Amino acid sequence: MNKIKVLIGSRQAPEIEAMLSDIPGNVEVRFLPQGDPLRAHIADVEILFGHIGEDAMPEANALRWAHQPHAGVEGFMYPSFKASDVVLTNCRGLYGTQIAEHAFALLLSLTRHIPIQLEFMKTKHWERTQCIELAGMTMGILGLGGIGRAIAARARAFEFEVVAADVESIDKPDTVSELYGLDGLMPFLAQSNILMVCCPSTPETHKLLSHAQFNQMPDNSYVVNVSRGKVVDEEALVAALRRGKLAGAGLDVTYTEPCPPESPLWEQENVILTSHSAGASQHIRRRAMQLFIDNLHRYVAAEPLVNVVDKTKGY
Amino acid sequence: MNKIKVLIGSRQAPEIEAMLSDIPGNVEVRFLPQGDPLRAHIADVEILFGHIGEDAMPEANALRWAHQPHAGVEGFMYPSFKASDVVLTNCRGLYGTQIAEHAFALLLSLTRHIPIQLEFMKTKHWERTQCIELAGMTMGILGLGGIGRAIAARARAFEFEVVAADVESIDKPDTVSELYGLDGLMPFLAQSNILMVCCPSTPETHKLLSHAQFNQMPDNSYVVNVSRGKVVDEEALVAALRRGKLAGAGLDVTYTEPCPPESPLWEQENVILTSHSAGASQHIRRRAMQLFIDNLHRYVAAEPLVNVVDKTKGY
Repeated sequence: MNKIKVLIGSRQAPEIEAMLSDIPGNVEVRFLPQGDPLRAHIADVEILFGHIGEDAMPEANALRWAHQPHAGVEGFMYPSFKASDVVLTNCRGLYGTQIAEHAFALLLSLTRHIPIQLEFMKTKHWERTQCIELAGMTMGILGLGGIGRAIAARARAFEFEVVAADVESIDKPDTVSELYGLDGLMPFLAQSNILMVCCPSTPETHKLLSHAQFNQMPDNSYVVNVSRGKVVDEEALVAALRRGKLAGAGLDVTYTEPCPPESPLWEQENVILTSHSAGASQHIRRRAMQLFIDNLHRYVAAEPLVNVVDKTKGY
Repeated sequence: MNKIKVLIGSRQAPEIEAMLSDIPGNVEVRFLPQGDPLRAHIADVEILFGHIGEDAMPEANALRWAHQPHAGVEGFMYPSFKASDVVLTNCRGLYGTQIAEHAFALLLSLTRHIPIQLEFMKTKHWERTQCIELAGMTMGILGLGGIGRAIAARARAFEFEVVAADVESIDKPDTVSELYGLDGLMPFLAQSNILMVCCPSTPETHKLLSHAQFNQMPDNSYVVNVSRGKVVDEEALVAALRRGKLAGAGLDVTYTEPCPPESPLWEQENVILTSHSAGASQHIRRRAMQLFIDNLHRYVAAEPLVNVVDKTKGY
């Protein structure tokens, strides 16, 4: 009997690759040789760990399942992949904790003036500044998936009032006092002293936050984006910062990544950029591989996979 | 009948001084003229809002009550004040929220590499770094007063295991899984991946954290100090950072303040200094004045004051 062929799209640390000893016996694992195009190695592959681009899809005749070892899957949302029978899974659920920590790092760095104090240190200057206390403010969470919920739980302990907006009809968790649909975006924003952007990049969320939306927020609000830069109209964001409508922005993501040199965000006052590192964690590679291996056992046993992406929704 | 004379040691913002219209009728409020020594204006003062030094105490013949508009009171712990009948109150309970926010700002800035990313921004450099996820680690809180408890509540939502050590025999709050006395300092430290220093400066806590104590901590631990620099032996702290025992330190306070130019802390890698601004908040002046005014009404009504400091303990 032919073995099920699995291709791992990039080399992993030795201790992560060692986890692959725990796979079913009828599975054969190969690694894409570094620098080689995927399309030259995909022909007989049934399961792919990693991304497949539009150029390689015509060669992927045996492909049944692709696993994205991250949370965002917009890179798979081109016509030939969406139209195919290939099942897509992702790593949603593995990112909430560290991204929530990162979101608070960005927010609290802004309100407690960490960038200012780091500059003071360079000249050995000691000066108390008028930091902002957050407790009692309202945090608005846009996108109440795993990341948004992890942020909401922490926000409650920080004594925020928490409201949320989500495109889906979902049950309101106890940590959230009011939950809006996207038709309630404006009243949602009107309350949000802090806006946490946690939603995926889809046609529906593309540049969802623009001039009218930032205008709707209370004065001196903060925006933190830890999901996708394409949700934000950056020209509108910079304009809102420049006229003081927004007091600051903490951005782990930008519309184009890496953030291009001509972007005004690099030098805009009260902006912190963190190079799409919110998902980083000393645990994430192990967790992502474990999720894949667990799914691999399900696949071989013909059980339903977990974390299947809805291609029509794009997440 | 003579009015009760109150002296406010420093001018306040107009909206804060306006709050003083709500004082009892038999109270007369004066402000210390800017630049004048307190001792020249203290003779007939019954109630002082602010600090009184050793030089002015011999003149303070009418003084019955001094209110420190901050939390730390070590500046009052000289012999003639301690021996006097003057009641001392402070602002404990008004700082927990913003100092807890500041403590997390320091900690999360270290683990999410905010200083590194801010440097990257200067050269428009976009590079993901290997940030540290905190969830699941143990946070040790040294000093479980109002500030320590505010930190503990937030730490639980951040999925820390929380242990604490306190000099007092106090009830263990639900947010804390184990509570030690100072005789349990070493086992407490042995568990603490994150050490939050939240205790007052007293003879008992002076340089309490030195070489042996930092050695006791797990490798790659973090220290955050948001209370008093004198609790830490800074030479030992720097040594522990230099040999990599500690992964970082977030210090709002230093042994001597302002931190002197010769201190190695200014240039030590993985150290953030924030100029004793953890207590800063847009609300604190109003809250501190309200507490004083409420106590003033109690004083006039001969009711017990709140927030009375135990001079033998020093907090």
